[in-house]
Amino acid sequence: MTATPTRTERGTHRAQRERVAALHAELTGNGLVTWTAGNVSERVPGEDLFVIKGSGVRYDGLTWEGITVCDLDGTAVDGVKKPSSDTDAHAYVYRHMPEVGGQVHTHSPYATAWAARAEPIPCVLTAMADEFGGPIPVGPFALIGDDSIGRGIVGTLRGSRSPAVLMQNHGVFTIGPSAEAAVKAAVMTEDVARTVHLSRQLGEPLPIAQADVDSLYARYQNVYGQ
Amino acid sequence: MTATPTRTERGTHRAQRERVAALHAELTGNGLVTWTAGNVSERVPGEDLFVIKGSGVRYDGLTWEGITVCDLDGTAVDGVKKPSSDTDAHAYVYRHMPEVGGQVHTHSPYATAWAARAEPIPCVLTAMADEFGGPIPVGPFALIGDDSIGRGIVGTLRGSRSPAVLMQNHGVFTIGPSAEAAVKAAVMTEDVARTVHLSRQLGEPLPIAQADVDSLYARYQNVYGQ
Amino acid sequence: MTATPTRTERGTHRAQRERVAALHAELTGNGLVTWTAGNVSERVPGEDLFVIKGSGVRYDGLTWEGITVCDLDGTAVDGVKKPSSDTDAHAYVYRHMPEVGGQVHTHSPYATAWAARAEPIPCVLTAMADEFGGPIPVGPFALIGDDSIGRGIVGTLRGSRSPAVLMQNHGVFTIGPSAEAAVKAAVMTEDVARTVHLSRQLGEPLPIAQADVDSLYARYQNVYGQ
Amino acid sequence: MTATPTRTERGTHRAQRERVAALHAELTGNGLVTWTAGNVSERVPGEDLFVIKGSGVRYDGLTWEGITVCDLDGTAVDGVKKPSSDTDAHAYVYRHMPEVGGQVHTHSPYATAWAARAEPIPCVLTAMADEFGGPIPVGPFALIGDDSIGRGIVGTLRGSRSPAVLMQNHGVFTIGPSAEAAVKAAVMTEDVARTVHLSRQLGEPLPIAQADVDSLYARYQNVYGQ
Repeated sequence: MTATPTRTERGTHRAQRERVAALHAELTGNGLVTWTAGNVSERVPGEDLFVIKGSGVRYDGLTWEGITVCDLDGTAVDGVKKPSSDTDAHAYVYRHMPEVGGQVHTHSPYATAWAARAEPIPCVLTAMADEFGGPIPVGPFALIGDDSIGRGIVGTLRGSRSPAVLMQNHGVFTIGPSAEAAVKAAVMTEDVARTVHLSRQLGEPLPIAQADVDSLYARYQNVYGQ
Repeated sequence: MTATPTRTERGTHRAQRERVAALHAELTGNGLVTWTAGNVSERVPGEDLFVIKGSGVRYDGLTWEGITVCDLDGTAVDGVKKPSSDTDAHAYVYRHMPEVGGQVHTHSPYATAWAARAEPIPCVLTAMADEFGGPIPVGPFALIGDDSIGRGIVGTLRGSRSPAVLMQNHGVFTIGPSAEAAVKAAVMTEDVARTVHLSRQLGEPLPIAQADVDSLYARYQNVYGQ
Repeated sequence: MTATPTRTERGTHRAQRERVAALHAELTGNGLVTWTAGNVSERVPGEDLFVIKGSGVRYDGLTWEGITVCDLDGTAVDGVKKPSSDTDAHAYVYRHMPEVGGQVHTHSPYATAWAARAEPIPCVLTAMADEFGGPIPVGPFALIGDDSIGRGIVGTLRGSRSPAVLMQNHGVFTIGPSAEAAVKAAVMTEDVARTVHLSRQLGEPLPIAQADVDSLYARYQNVYGQ
Repeated sequence: MTATPTRTERGTHRAQRERVAALHAELTGNGLVTWTAGNVSERVPGEDLFVIKGSGVRYDGLTWEGITVCDLDGTAVDGVKKPSSDTDAHAYVYRHMPEVGGQVHTHSPYATAWAARAEPIPCVLTAMADEFGGPIPVGPFALIGDDSIGRGIVGTLRGSRSPAVLMQNHGVFTIGPSAEAAVKAAVMTEDVARTVHLSRQLGEPLPIAQADVDSLYARYQNVYGQ
């Protein structure tokens, strides 16, 4: 991981890197990230590669050059920035979940507050039933530096309806068929994390019956054609 | 509902659609909506039609083309976007409350936090007495897909002074003589939902005597001439 | 109060009205106001007049024409807008506190949350000791429409170090030698209302000894030369 | 302290003052400061001087002329503004911690809420372990006007991994090898103060084992090469 990029003169995958760079504006615009933390990645269609935000790159003025191309081991193969320190986790997920086309990582405050208690967010909003199909689950505490975080993400999300996992004491990882879908999941995660937090502050939100959760989820996924 | 629009070449009701599109900026500017959720609609004066935000349309760059014209059954009759998935609820309200000229739906966080507990917001602020004339009431849990939400809105708001209802586990619906009035009600709903939430966090806000609520409401409605 | 303006063709006091109009941007920029609520006023030097925001005027695009000139009974004497519905309260304060040159009224959320409980904000921050010289006091519940609000403000602030009062179930009124000073007081009121609120949510903030409050207040007022 | 600047015609250290002026935008952009409170300072390399924000200077439109050059006793030696009233504290830190190249002071709300309770922020987030290497400590209550604040900062941070201290009933002071590093520390302090606050509101965040904190801190500091 984090090997020095080998091609720096002429960027490949420029259109995709521009699009992924632009998607990062949703993270700042929705208050999901602080300073340089957080990142968006996306699989390169038809190649064993993905693109991801560079390490320590500021959001302000982020362009395609702030996005680095990596192989599925997380080794940089094109770019002027070292890839994000979360690249190993993204790479692990791309290797083990072929249906995943995009990923997002944030420390968004309300969701991370749940993560610090290792408490899943209960499904008490119709919007949660639509988007997540149930509670947002918690993944294990894992140190950075090997496959622990990636394994935690995959182990929690595989077989779950939720595109988001709260990694204990850490933050949010979301997946989707594209980077944009993963960004939407990250935005909605913080949105429902906040609303359920607020609701719980003054009492106990009412549960939604499992049959109603199932019905809402089925309808929403069908309408949007996943 | 959500039938494919039949006229897409030349938009009717363009001035109204432009105005309603522009009103959506109040939803984002006041932090009431996330991603594509939420919508504003308005009855077309003198016709059995209303205009409403398209389904899945982003707020950024929303123009008149993001607004679809529907008949009072919720069937799209002009536009390039499928109407909002909340169109059935809006249509039901327009059919059953002829005095309603505009509607807004949001999942604004503080108000939805009350909705998730199915708890009305008590009238403990003079601004609430002015605008809502009492507590903001809660409507039933209702699934999307038929008239349930619309019936819940109408059943709760008919005969109430409040232009806003908190639909259980869901969010806010507001009504008004125009789209702008409904937008104002949605903005004020979140504002008072937040202040009363904050007040309740550290104790119990003092009630306002019913006679004072009545006096404030009468004066305010008279001044603004509803 | 709220008599129709008598001169609408050519605005007097235009420079002051422009300055006061521009000061309203601090209310929106600091999140103190919602929709059209809230207002800034300023005494006209050397005349028995003051200028104040018009009633129901939006903040966006507010110009000098949104500011109306009133006499000290609150009667509009120049302007195209009816003066704010809070004009009576401002007028009462100008009549009874000759040292007051500017006033601000808001329903800023954290401060109004304290007001809804009729609970003074305790002086537990050095910044509060600097600016307010002690707790921020609570004024009585008062209905709009006569001198009740004005009397409540004057009765609470006369003889207090605090330039801000929390009117029960209502909101914040601040005074100062100029409109800008009153705006600063309104901004700082919400700032400390929020920080003390947050601190109290997880325990009890430590008091500051009265002698230290006195010392901080004396130093700060001296430095800034009030 | 706060002697009148002696050179006002031609500014020295202009490039550094421009850079430090621009860094203040991070304080406003991240919601760390209100009105004129808060400041950034930076040591002048190779000289017994530092630059710091002027007293009472607004953030909006802050240019290099709003930044004053001081000697290490806190006496202004170049500039048109009196240096910040916090200059004594900055000067004390520069005199006693030669490794410090930049400092920031704020009353950021969540961090100051912890400070008002004199409660350290526990290290329950991997991002805290990375940046702070443990809890964010609390310094003593200290009055402005002599070396008390400076001594409190130095006494708390010397020998601590944390670049941030919460001064009791007051606010945040951060240090770093440069002004930008201290700004980053101030931004991250508020970020983790908020997330841990939110987490504690609904239960008890899980601790991170000391060995894991040590491992995360060592790795992060090594990667970024402090």
